[in-house]
Amino acid sequence: MSRFDIRPATEADWPAIWLILEPVFRAGESYPYPRDIDEAEARRAWMELPRMTCVAEEAGQILGTYYIKPNQPGQGSHVCNCGYVVSSTARGRGVASALCEHSQQLGLELGFRAMQFNLVVSTNTGAVRLWQKLGFKVLARLPGAFAHPSEGDVDALLMFKALA
Amino acid sequence: MSRFDIRPATEADWPAIWLILEPVFRAGESYPYPRDIDEAEARRAWMELPRMTCVAEEAGQILGTYYIKPNQPGQGSHVCNCGYVVSSTARGRGVASALCEHSQQLGLELGFRAMQFNLVVSTNTGAVRLWQKLGFKVLARLPGAFAHPSEGDVDALLMFKALA
Repeated sequence: MSRFDIRPATEADWPAIWLILEPVFRAGESYPYPRDIDEAEARRAWMELPRMTCVAEEAGQILGTYYIKPNQPGQGSHVCNCGYVVSSTARGRGVASALCEHSQQLGLELGFRAMQFNLVVSTNTGAVRLWQKLGFKVLARLPGAFAHPSEGDVDALLMFKALA
Repeated sequence: MSRFDIRPATEADWPAIWLILEPVFRAGESYPYPRDIDEAEARRAWMELPRMTCVAEEAGQILGTYYIKPNQPGQGSHVCNCGYVVSSTARGRGVASALCEHSQQLGLELGFRAMQFNLVVSTNTGAVRLWQKLGFKVLARLPGAFAHPSEGDVDALLMFKALA
């Protein structure tokens, strides 16, 4: 299995990151970004507002990306939140899993004590299974909390893991 | 029981609103705003970013305030989030309850289909009981998700209610 590196994203990575994010945001089936989000707004959300953004790279190709940020300000800021997107051409190679493991380690290094996913779409069963395999627990099922573009209001899961 | 009105906040209400918010934010026991938040940042969070901000008023005195906003962007934006603060001099008069009822009605009028509180501090038992009385269910207990200034990391509750 050829290996990829995971490293902090740079400004120069943005065009390649956007190529990966745009189809996922336009589809609107897994993240609650407005489906018509423009590139500047997406860049702000993925690269500027988070504490840090990383990419998985192999031979100059960006395979996937994640951000990490405090899930809440102030007294909630020791719990982090992450989002992960993998290129459609790099599925099935363990990239999402590697990104999530990397983010947990980085979260610890940044001083976070837990990680929370606020809105895992229940129909995104691959993601739910993967996060469970990586130690995340479903703490809540939010009824109809995600307005899926083709399936209507579907449940979303709150998933949580203490970082130790 | 003398009655108060609940109405949209105006720019002119801000000084009175800040008088109510500041001690609560400084104490840091119920909301995850940074305890050292400055007035401009607080105003942005309470008055500018939300969809709407309301106040409870009686004879020119502001007794309490709440904001309402989408809890998530895009496909999560049909679920709203609110925050409520009542003046220490107006406790025990049903102001919080009236603000919450008002916010549910306003939420419906604004097209929201549910209301979610992301981080109800478990030690804030009065609030937990009140929200339950008003029909909110505890969907998750987030372990240690609130760094309480005197009690350390305490659990926070995710509370949710469908608006119908």
